[in-house]
Parts: sequence; structure tokens; C-alpha cells
Amino acid sequence: MPTNSVKEQWIVFIHQLQDDICNALEIADGKSKFIEDVWQRPEGGGGKTRVIANGNVFEKGGVNTSIVYGDVTKTMQTQLNINGEKWFACGLSLVIHPTNPMVPTVHCNYRMFELYNEKEEVIDRWFGGGTDLTPYYLFDEDAVHFHKTYKNICDQYDDSFYPRFKKECDDYFVNTHRNNERRGIGGIFYDHQRPNENKSIEFWIDFAKSCGYGFIESYIPIVNKNKSLPYTPSQKYWQEIRRGRYVEFNLVHDRGTIFGLKTNGRTESILMSLPPTVRFDYNHIHSPNSEEEKLIKILSQPKEWCI
Amino acid sequence: MPTNSVKEQWIVFIHQLQDDICNALEIADGKSKFIEDVWQRPEGGGGKTRVIANGNVFEKGGVNTSIVYGDVTKTMQTQLNINGEKWFACGLSLVIHPTNPMVPTVHCNYRMFELYNEKEEVIDRWFGGGTDLTPYYLFDEDAVHFHKTYKNICDQYDDSFYPRFKKECDDYFVNTHRNNERRGIGGIFYDHQRPNENKSIEFWIDFAKSCGYGFIESYIPIVNKNKSLPYTPSQKYWQEIRRGRYVEFNLVHDRGTIFGLKTNGRTESILMSLPPTVRFDYNHIHSPNSEEEKLIKILSQPKEWCI
Repeated sequence: MPTNSVKEQWIVFIHQLQDDICNALEIADGKSKFIEDVWQRPEGGGGKTRVIANGNVFEKGGVNTSIVYGDVTKTMQTQLNINGEKWFACGLSLVIHPTNPMVPTVHCNYRMFELYNEKEEVIDRWFGGGTDLTPYYLFDEDAVHFHKTYKNICDQYDDSFYPRFKKECDDYFVNTHRNNERRGIGGIFYDHQRPNENKSIEFWIDFAKSCGYGFIESYIPIVNKNKSLPYTPSQKYWQEIRRGRYVEFNLVHDRGTIFGLKTNGRTESILMSLPPTVRFDYNHIHSPNSEEEKLIKILSQPKEWCI
Repeated sequence: MPTNSVKEQWIVFIHQLQDDICNALEIADGKSKFIEDVWQRPEGGGGKTRVIANGNVFEKGGVNTSIVYGDVTKTMQTQLNINGEKWFACGLSLVIHPTNPMVPTVHCNYRMFELYNEKEEVIDRWFGGGTDLTPYYLFDEDAVHFHKTYKNICDQYDDSFYPRFKKECDDYFVNTHRNNERRGIGGIFYDHQRPNENKSIEFWIDFAKSCGYGFIESYIPIVNKNKSLPYTPSQKYWQEIRRGRYVEFNLVHDRGTIFGLKTNGRTESILMSLPPTVRFDYNHIHSPNSEEEKLIKILSQPKEWCI
């Protein structure tokens, strides 16, 4: 596959995925529509940020794509350990915060990175991505459905993927300052996957497509199942406390967020990931033997959902 | 002054200041009382965390003291550039979040640090501290009163202090990822002040005492003046949006917070600084020529309040 067609194929996929995911979310919401902000990056490229707010189901959400490129800077060399003359990155990133605490928050991200020498020849290329689920109340059948969807997808490509990428996800989304509590119940996460003689460029693009569309298959049924469940003010309160932990992870630990904020990324697009309303209580304590405690136990000790 | 009496004098001051500030805040609140959590640090020392919540005036606040010590670790050597065998630190740190958006949030911190060689002799000692104000609606007379209080205190010690420490404060509390918007209207901030032939240990302890008690003089009158002012739901909304910026500064930029969270500090005491309820909207826009815009202009371009 000629170099340019790789980029083209990836860009077409990312934009199509953005359209299809936004469409699926709008149908599940039944009221609000995404609005789009197109932005330019002064150093090269730009993006399409799409946000939804105050829907029937979704209190706040963003489904963003970006195509960005430029010269390799000192910061990239030292902080990202990247060597080359020029770089290119394209990906989709989404975070959805539902109103109802019975519906989980979800995040996903799929991206391709290319590095070039001074002749603009590709000298390196890698793929990364993943999807993870953050419930406020844990329905075991939802966790099983979510993980099984990604296990089935992974198994079509390589039997080793699901266990490896599930573990990478559990190991990444961790609030180390909260006794290693996980942000949620995980999913899959992979990074720096380079095509080789066994796994071609097409293989990785195909895998990202399957995982990317897996979002709709994995998440929308959970939304539809739970979106009309009743909830109490104290359950909403708990959701807002847990959303505080989401903020803590994203601002203190998430490499992408911190790197973006410290290198003049588009702040509003990066921080669309933050939840709409949040509470920070001093030393919030949940009741013993409660649904809240059940969740915390799973977050402290990730579980195998596909056995 | 013998070494031990420096420590003792500082510790007595910090605890007395904690008592006196809590007392002044309880009187201004008129309803809620501080509750105290005493905690131990496994590696040495501990603290007294005092929190107030759901008062007439204060929605959430903490006035914490800690006395901590231990061996100089690799992390301290590399991240804090500290060389020595053992260290000691003692300070007071407070953050107060009022309910009413007409009453500003305030933060202050006063601390002493000592370093020892293997014979436990003091080889270095420095003082740091400051107080800064974060209004949601700007009353010029409050800003003038707050800054003048600290200028008057500073001027009793050294004419160069107020201009220098005011600038350090303006330069430190900056959301660089928000076009260098300041967290608030500043105040004073000083760090790494070492006693020398001109300015003795007593000088710096005395200065910290004057600044520490200056908190009561600078902040309480503003609370009493504004705590009964009416406000609208949309003004409360604006406060919660601005509190989001406070969260962003503390979690993304504040050196003390990040260092504490990454080095096994007591998370609940560190994060008592986060506001009780917060909103993160995508691309929140304030009205032109509004009170909100007036605030933002000052935050973008710090002003001289004492001229």
C-alpha cells in the first residue's frame, strides 16, 4: 500500500467512524444533536470537535477527530522520546457522560502516528487505541457484555490481544494517589503497535476499525437497557463524587491530557473529557455492604469478566 | 536562637495560627464548626486537618497543619533538587470555598523547611508562604483592601517585599493552558527565603506571623461585607465554572499538589483544596461587557491595586 494511501485510508476511516458514532449516540439520546466546532492548529492541521449536551440521556459528551502534523520539537524529543524530522497524527477521541448514574461513562480513542525523515519518507508508524467503561453502579451483565464484545473482536485478530490489552487498560487508568483505585472497569488499551512481517499496516487499520465500531456494539445496548432506570438524589450525588475521581485521573495522570495542555493543544477539545457537574467532598465515605462499596471493590481489584 | 527553639517556636506559631484562623472563620460563618482529623505519616510526622462544610457562609473549607520529616529520598533529590540526609517541614495551608459567589475563595500557606547532615546538624533552612484571593465577581474595593493589608505588612519589613512577592504570586497562579489566565487577583507569594546577616531567623518567623495573622485582617472583612449579598442561579453557575479553573490549576500546575499526590502524601488533606461543586462546560462563553468579562480582563492582565 503506497504511503499516502495509508494516511488517506486512516483519515477516511476516522471521519466515517465519527459520523457513525455520533449518529448512534443521537439515536440513543433521542433529543439532543451534536454541534461541531472546526478548528485549525497554528503549527499545522486541525480538528473537528463535536459536542452534545443536556440530552435525554447524555448530560455532556464529545466525539472529536483531529489531523495534526508538524516538525519534531525539543519537547517531543525529550518528553515523548521521538526522533525524526516531521510527524503526523490522526485519531478519534470520545468521552460520554450520561445524566443517569445507572448509565456508565465511556471513553475511547483510536489513533495513528507517523514519523518522517528530512526527505519526508516514513521512518516509523504506530497504532494505538482502546475503550474503557466507568460505571457508577455496577451491573455485572453490562461489564460482561462490554468486555465480551472486545474479547470477541480481539480474538478474530490474535488470541493474545484481549488478555494483554485488557491488562494494559487495567494498568493505565489508575489513580495511584487513591490507593491504586481504577478509574473504571477497564476494557482494552494498546499503544505503539508497529506493523511487521506478521501484522501488516492493513491488519492494524482493520483492527482499529473493528474496535472503533465495537464501541457502538459494546456501549449503545447498555445505554438503552439502563437509560430509563430510576435513581435517587443520593445516587446522583455518588455519581458526582465518582466523576471527581475521573477529573483527578485525567488532570493528574493522563499522559495525553497533560501533554496536550502543556504543549499548546486546543484546551477546549482536550478538556471536553471533564464531566459536566462534579463534587469534591472531604473524605467521602460510602456505606458498608452497599452498591457503592461493591463498585469500589471491583475498582480496587480488577476482575476477569470473560471466563 | 538554638536550633531546637526555632522548630519549637515555629510549631507553636503554626498551631496557634490554626486555632485563631479557625475561630475567626467559625465566627464569620455563624453556624458550622471545624471538625478535626489527626493523621500520622508512616514515614514520619503527621498533621491536623480541620474541615468545615455546609455552613451559613462556607460551603467547604480546610485549615490544615502538618509537621513532617524523614530521610531525603531520590525523588526529593531529583524533583526538588534537595541535598542532605534528613529533612523537616512544618506549615499551615488553607483553602476556603464560600457558598455565595459574591464572597471570594481564598488560599494561604506558610511553611518552614530544614535540612540536616548525617550528624543531624541543620545545614539549610528556608521559609515560604503567601495568600491569594480568587473572586468570582470583582469588587474593586475588596481587591484594594486585600492587597493593601499585605502591602502594609510587607512594608514594615522591607519596602521591596510587596512588589516582589505580589509579582511572584501573579506569576505562579497561572493557567498557562488557558491563555495565561490567573487563578485569581493574587496577593503575595514568597519561597526559599533563607536567613542571612541582614534578615535573621527571627525576622522570617516574625514576617510569617504578621502575614499569617494578616489573613484574618485581609479576608474576614470581605466575608462579612459580602456574605449576605443576593445572587442569582446564573451567578452561582458562573462560580461553579470558575471553580473548574481552580481545579485545573491545582491538579495540572500546582507544584505542591502534584508532588504530594505523586509521593504518597495524605490525599484527602491535599485535595481538601478542591471546591465542593464544580461545572465543566464545553467552551463556556461569558457575555460581553458583563461583570464576568470584567473579572476575566483582570485575570488576564494583573493589576496594581496599591497605587
